[in-house]
Amino acid sequence: MSTTMRFMDVALEEARLAAERGEVPVGAVIVHRGEIVARCGNLTRATSDVTAHAEVVAIRSAGEMLGSERLCECDLYVTLEPCVMCAAAISFARIRRLYFGAEDAKGGGVVNGVRFFDSATCHHRPEVYSGFSEKAAETMLKSFFAERRQR
Amino acid sequence: MSTTMRFMDVALEEARLAAERGEVPVGAVIVHRGEIVARCGNLTRATSDVTAHAEVVAIRSAGEMLGSERLCECDLYVTLEPCVMCAAAISFARIRRLYFGAEDAKGGGVVNGVRFFDSATCHHRPEVYSGFSEKAAETMLKSFFAERRQR
Repeated sequence: MSTTMRFMDVALEEARLAAERGEVPVGAVIVHRGEIVARCGNLTRATSDVTAHAEVVAIRSAGEMLGSERLCECDLYVTLEPCVMCAAAISFARIRRLYFGAEDAKGGGVVNGVRFFDSATCHHRPEVYSGFSEKAAETMLKSFFAERRQR
Repeated sequence: MSTTMRFMDVALEEARLAAERGEVPVGAVIVHRGEIVARCGNLTRATSDVTAHAEVVAIRSAGEMLGSERLCECDLYVTLEPCVMCAAAISFARIRRLYFGAEDAKGGGVVNGVRFFDSATCHHRPEVYSGFSEKAAETMLKSFFAERRQR
């Protein structure tokens, strides 16, 4: 298995754990020099914090662990296309590479919506790679919302 | 003094305190039913958290205090035009009204940059009012950056 798929599998596992907690199933992993320094899923409900998307929680956690706001040598893996809040956080943190799974036509901010990294007010653009385990990521989200609609 | 200017003065005081701590001088206040439920300045350096802009810290803090991710009856006062990360957080939190001081041509995301609230992927738009104490907010930012350049 490639390194990328191995880290994306950890992100998918975090998404599964998020769903079990009743959170929207999105998971993220931050890797620094080949080692995982943060792994987490959405925490918005548990923490009453609307900003606690998986990517933001991972960036906070990696910043704390590495003792720096800037995560220049870090790569971020996330199961869903980041929203614009997370895209901006990724840019501010100087993340080197972003790998994401499924696209998010309704809420994404990277290849959908305002495409923040391509805008004039974006001052750092990570390398972006997508389409990893996108079916698994999408299926998990669809099941989650289908179950909630039935309640 | 109008209520708006009173709350903006508290935000300016938080910006001043942020500058004293060596943080970019931006301050924010969240008001719920006429009462301040969160007041803070930027905390990015102190917490090694690139997402700890004044608005995000205030939204987290108000969410925790009110026990809810959604801050539907809350108004947010901030000394500088929010960046797109903060604009998205304000939208996700369902903030009712946003009052800001100075515009931010380089980093703003409300009336500059990607103008997030006007985009198709923005699903809640607060009422937006601007131009309160903008000179005071601008002067504080300019002095802060001028001092740092001299070091």
